[in-house]
Amino acid sequence: MPDDGNAAYGHVSFARSKSHFADRITADVRDGWPVEAGRYRLVVSRACPWASRAVISRRLLGLEEALPMAVADPVQDDRSWRFTLDPGGRDPVLGIRYLAEAYEAREKGFPGGVSVPAVVDVPSGKLVTNDYQRLTLDLATEWTALHREGAPDLYPRELRGEIDRVMAEVYEDVNNGVYRTGFAVDQEEYEGACAGVFRRLERVAARLEGQRYLVGDTITEADIRLFTTLVRFDAVYHGHFKCNRWKLSENPVLWAYARDLFRTPGFGDTVDFDHIKRHYYRVHTGINPTGIVPLGPDLSGWRSPHGRERLGGRPFGTGTPPGPVPAAEAVPDLTAQP
Amino acid sequence: MPDDGNAAYGHVSFARSKSHFADRITADVRDGWPVEAGRYRLVVSRACPWASRAVISRRLLGLEEALPMAVADPVQDDRSWRFTLDPGGRDPVLGIRYLAEAYEAREKGFPGGVSVPAVVDVPSGKLVTNDYQRLTLDLATEWTALHREGAPDLYPRELRGEIDRVMAEVYEDVNNGVYRTGFAVDQEEYEGACAGVFRRLERVAARLEGQRYLVGDTITEADIRLFTTLVRFDAVYHGHFKCNRWKLSENPVLWAYARDLFRTPGFGDTVDFDHIKRHYYRVHTGINPTGIVPLGPDLSGWRSPHGRERLGGRPFGTGTPPGPVPAAEAVPDLTAQP
Repeated sequence: MPDDGNAAYGHVSFARSKSHFADRITADVRDGWPVEAGRYRLVVSRACPWASRAVISRRLLGLEEALPMAVADPVQDDRSWRFTLDPGGRDPVLGIRYLAEAYEAREKGFPGGVSVPAVVDVPSGKLVTNDYQRLTLDLATEWTALHREGAPDLYPRELRGEIDRVMAEVYEDVNNGVYRTGFAVDQEEYEGACAGVFRRLERVAARLEGQRYLVGDTITEADIRLFTTLVRFDAVYHGHFKCNRWKLSENPVLWAYARDLFRTPGFGDTVDFDHIKRHYYRVHTGINPTGIVPLGPDLSGWRSPHGRERLGGRPFGTGTPPGPVPAAEAVPDLTAQP
Repeated sequence: MPDDGNAAYGHVSFARSKSHFADRITADVRDGWPVEAGRYRLVVSRACPWASRAVISRRLLGLEEALPMAVADPVQDDRSWRFTLDPGGRDPVLGIRYLAEAYEAREKGFPGGVSVPAVVDVPSGKLVTNDYQRLTLDLATEWTALHREGAPDLYPRELRGEIDRVMAEVYEDVNNGVYRTGFAVDQEEYEGACAGVFRRLERVAARLEGQRYLVGDTITEADIRLFTTLVRFDAVYHGHFKCNRWKLSENPVLWAYARDLFRTPGFGDTVDFDHIKRHYYRVHTGINPTGIVPLGPDLSGWRSPHGRERLGGRPFGTGTPPGPVPAAEAVPDLTAQP
């Protein structure tokens, strides 16, 4: 999602744009885009919670080789997400400098914003989809032929009703609620959104007190979506978005839940706190005019024991954890610093 | 200090202005202003840490009747501190709408900012002093004839060397350090100031681990000056000024020390968290353009047991605690709200 900072500063409430390009990549080619190893490129920012869902799913499902990944600079310029982290400032596979070029290739003068996650068709250079809500569900259910051996079922058919219900509540009040809080244009709107964030988090914490994961006893898509917000909570949402009734680290249940996932292969090994903090604090000059990136919080607590094993659960169900992160995709572990 | 918000947004580092009017009110009339019950009016904002020193000292020393107090609106307008909390928007004793009028009466076209604390001579309506560093020392040492029975010695002669040394370090790195952090104009300046805040707080915490108060075994001026910053730390400095390595409530020693003082008569009963939060978040539009005041933090922790009695110490030395707050000066206790 790239236009959050700008969108917030008209005198209207924050409203998240719908994804403009909602094609799907499916196993039976219903929409013309077939699942195919090596054909597509997943473009993400490690800063972005919506893109990070896909980064985690891809790891858990072992799709790293089948669906290669491009990582954008966490700080956009006025042309949005760019490949300034790559040699020569170009994505080495797509050959483009800005993600917008793939959008333009798909639809000249497209009217929406440029957002991540985005999947680009490598042969044509055209954007396939930026539908962040659908993308991870399709990785879990349509890309199965390319999953690694031992990949978990992140969206089990018999639990989809409950997973969808939990995800909808968490989306409204938490995933997107933190943005509505941070980009509120007046006190009343802020207070409503902020109260909603914490009311929902308290309910979620009550649910997680006696069970290890949100739905069932294994990791599902619902956990991935809650995690990508929780991992950003103290680093950016608490201060930058004024979600400051308490820090995540002050809520024993949610803090342990988040650390449990963080230490699970596929979660914490995708998190780059430097990208996260620089993105929010430098891009949203409407709420942080100086662009200064805070030194805090102390991240070392992410390494402390979480004790959630006592709740049982089988993180990967009948499957297995993913292997190590490919060397080219390793992120610095900032939780090791004092 | 009223001009913090503006001063920070020139392209120069934050520098606290020296007090312009530094007359003293003394027991032996060295400078022409005699200590005299009822002659002067102390003008404060409960939002301001520098003014709050004087509010606390006045309570501890029992000077409420001898030195009546005017409380300014926590939110200044472009003419600075104003008496919009009073009927008709005028201070009932001085008859003025803006504190600036007392400054003008003292010196037509005075060049500095309008700051609190300020002491005004009631008969002439003229400002006597806005020297916040000197004021509380003089309340402690020159106003002794008007102290209540059992008033503590807040600046004991035999400890002044150590008190002055501790206060100087705390001033530089903490009291003023949080402002230098919050109003830093670039990343490097911010990081230096922020690191300095926490380095000093950690040293102060080490000192306070085994002793109840900063200097000696009783409350002194040094404790008052540290307290007025600590009590604002989680409510404003942590988020608004990006002093966010940890919250005060995450540092066991300092958090217990601050709560101990908070529960001591004369400290917490002068603190208005509503004034504090509204002032910083609404006035400093340079760093908080929306003017939105956060809902957090949860203040109920201020009421939890601090356990510092085990360290011994005699809060008031051979003296006694002050009596209850005069009804007209009572502040709402926001720590009682969930």
